[in-house]
Amino acid sequence: MAIKYAKRMETIKASEIREILKLTARPDIISFAGGLPAPELFPIEEMKKVTMKVLEENGQQALQYSTTEGFTPLREKIVYRMSKVGIREKVDNILVTNGSQQGLDFSGKIFLNPDDVVICESPSYLGAINAFQAYQCKFAEVPTDDDGMIIEELEKILSTTENVKFIYVIPDFQNPTGKTWSIERRKKLLETAVKFDLPIIEDNPYGELRFEGEIPPAIKSYDTDGRVIFLGTFSKTFTPGLRLGWVCASDEILNKYILVKQGADLQSSTISQMELNTFLEMYDLDAHVEKIKAVYKKRRDLMLETIKATFPPEAKFTYPEGGLFTWVELPEYIDTKELMIKAVEKKVAFVPGGSFYANGGHENTMRLNYSNMPDEKIVEGIKRLAEVIKEAL
Amino acid sequence: MAIKYAKRMETIKASEIREILKLTARPDIISFAGGLPAPELFPIEEMKKVTMKVLEENGQQALQYSTTEGFTPLREKIVYRMSKVGIREKVDNILVTNGSQQGLDFSGKIFLNPDDVVICESPSYLGAINAFQAYQCKFAEVPTDDDGMIIEELEKILSTTENVKFIYVIPDFQNPTGKTWSIERRKKLLETAVKFDLPIIEDNPYGELRFEGEIPPAIKSYDTDGRVIFLGTFSKTFTPGLRLGWVCASDEILNKYILVKQGADLQSSTISQMELNTFLEMYDLDAHVEKIKAVYKKRRDLMLETIKATFPPEAKFTYPEGGLFTWVELPEYIDTKELMIKAVEKKVAFVPGGSFYANGGHENTMRLNYSNMPDEKIVEGIKRLAEVIKEAL
Repeated sequence: MAIKYAKRMETIKASEIREILKLTARPDIISFAGGLPAPELFPIEEMKKVTMKVLEENGQQALQYSTTEGFTPLREKIVYRMSKVGIREKVDNILVTNGSQQGLDFSGKIFLNPDDVVICESPSYLGAINAFQAYQCKFAEVPTDDDGMIIEELEKILSTTENVKFIYVIPDFQNPTGKTWSIERRKKLLETAVKFDLPIIEDNPYGELRFEGEIPPAIKSYDTDGRVIFLGTFSKTFTPGLRLGWVCASDEILNKYILVKQGADLQSSTISQMELNTFLEMYDLDAHVEKIKAVYKKRRDLMLETIKATFPPEAKFTYPEGGLFTWVELPEYIDTKELMIKAVEKKVAFVPGGSFYANGGHENTMRLNYSNMPDEKIVEGIKRLAEVIKEAL
Repeated sequence: MAIKYAKRMETIKASEIREILKLTARPDIISFAGGLPAPELFPIEEMKKVTMKVLEENGQQALQYSTTEGFTPLREKIVYRMSKVGIREKVDNILVTNGSQQGLDFSGKIFLNPDDVVICESPSYLGAINAFQAYQCKFAEVPTDDDGMIIEELEKILSTTENVKFIYVIPDFQNPTGKTWSIERRKKLLETAVKFDLPIIEDNPYGELRFEGEIPPAIKSYDTDGRVIFLGTFSKTFTPGLRLGWVCASDEILNKYILVKQGADLQSSTISQMELNTFLEMYDLDAHVEKIKAVYKKRRDLMLETIKATFPPEAKFTYPEGGLFTWVELPEYIDTKELMIKAVEKKVAFVPGGSFYANGGHENTMRLNYSNMPDEKIVEGIKRLAEVIKEAL
């Protein structure tokens, strides 16, 4: 039979990260690919207790359909958590989603006609690029430095580009570079968005995992006219397996997300939402995050020290103050996709950086994750990777 | 600010069922709206045991990210369950989704360009209509009788309509009418789909809830060239709160669903999938379904008997051999949306039938759910509804 798919299917391709994750799931591989939390830190005993409590006290409710918006006591706790980055919103401004990936997909569905333009950092999160691309958009990549998007470059692009629908940014421990935007740059981005009357999508999955320094206010904390849409998640602070994230937006915009969620899957899991809510009541998530941070900080230090000691001087790398990733730039003639094949031969894996550039190129880059491997594997894996890089130079 | 949404947002509107569910969540309302399973039958004690087992034995895995396709042991069990309606597929042909609603949304995303045409029954499931409409499609409604779509009418439409992308049907205890397609009509539908070279989306959330007679083979069981996409769910046989359904399709088509799932939300909940899988290993889902069926059969009988005894003779209603719904047609001059206002005054609710017609009209119909109310409320609610109807005649 000759199946006729929608035009958008021509642009939807497999996420390289997911395909690589499959390849690197073999236990003999030291994987710096993916963005997996450390599973040994998951609160398994606490999950047993909260599940028993939820099923004991509200089992019928937990297993039944519930509202699209999400479980209200959980949404109240999300409002409280967001107040820590300066966001003052009401429970009605929160929609619970299946991880923040679903918030990205919905953003594309709500804003993008074919050929509309998304403004993003260069590089940006490949899962967002893939989600938006499914709505047949184009991308304008804004050059970044250590403080975030270069605003002059952003203004230039906005002055000369038609059909821009929103600006997508990851200001805290950016995926893939691990960099964090300065407060000044956050304010300037918002000013520019006001000037050009555009919404901002602020994606913040990693902000709570700060190892040093102060947590900067969210861009949304400066938002006075409801143009910033904030995406959050419990995947990195609690567990990804429950698939729980959220969208925070002004009444009018959030209503669109709720409508889209109705058609997409009716609601997120009732029992997962109630489990997380009970966890937040019975335990101290901040204390749990402190434990995670201590482990990840040590792993970051170990990875960066080993890179410093073993990588050739041609390799530049970032110094993330939190989050899960560091980012390596090699000389331009190196193709990290080819490097990856040799690395996997030595049983070490990473994500080639090219797919984080919405419009391609930059094949001389790579993303390294340090949260998912134990200390000794980090040292051993980076050493092997150093060899592979040196051979390619 | 002037927010510019995508064009598709003009066609996405609130699901009337969800809005009505909110209204009728008040405990003093006797609600025949919604399609909620009976929560008193949920296997709460079993869920406690399976959750403890999963967290005890595989806690780290259960709370971590996993593959987009779904948890393989669960997918194997889905293959086995589908063999009971004659479907012979492999584990690679199964994608786990967040309920079958997500399968509907993905179907729209994969097949529909703006102005493409979906063929559906008249009436059809309003959640499907909403999900497809988000992709700016049009609908051609095929008249149905007690055996399913009238194939001559379908052929007429297919011969004269351009850009048809798929045929969407709910052959078992259809939502909203409760009717079931005959075997002959199933075979003829497939022949017609072959003749016009179209895919069929076979949505089967209720088929296992058969109170009497034999379960007919799925349309997919006759499929020889991979044109039937089968959507299943555990929401009605196990619990809806976990949000677990599946898509079964040929390799090429399923690959599209997997790609779309990657961008949409990466994967369904790992722990929910493992809990359900362990339930299927430790307990007998078929025995559990028998319990559900015994209760629902009694409620159906009670509802139909009370309708017969109290509704005026102008009201026609269906005799569902299973599933959750019966369907009432009143004289054409009655508008059930107006009736609903008066019904809610008497503290009884239903879903006005107009929204189950993709192209509108038929406001003289209503859907009644009998699975979610205890016996005495069914009798009392139908009596009140009879009064409201008699007053409107």
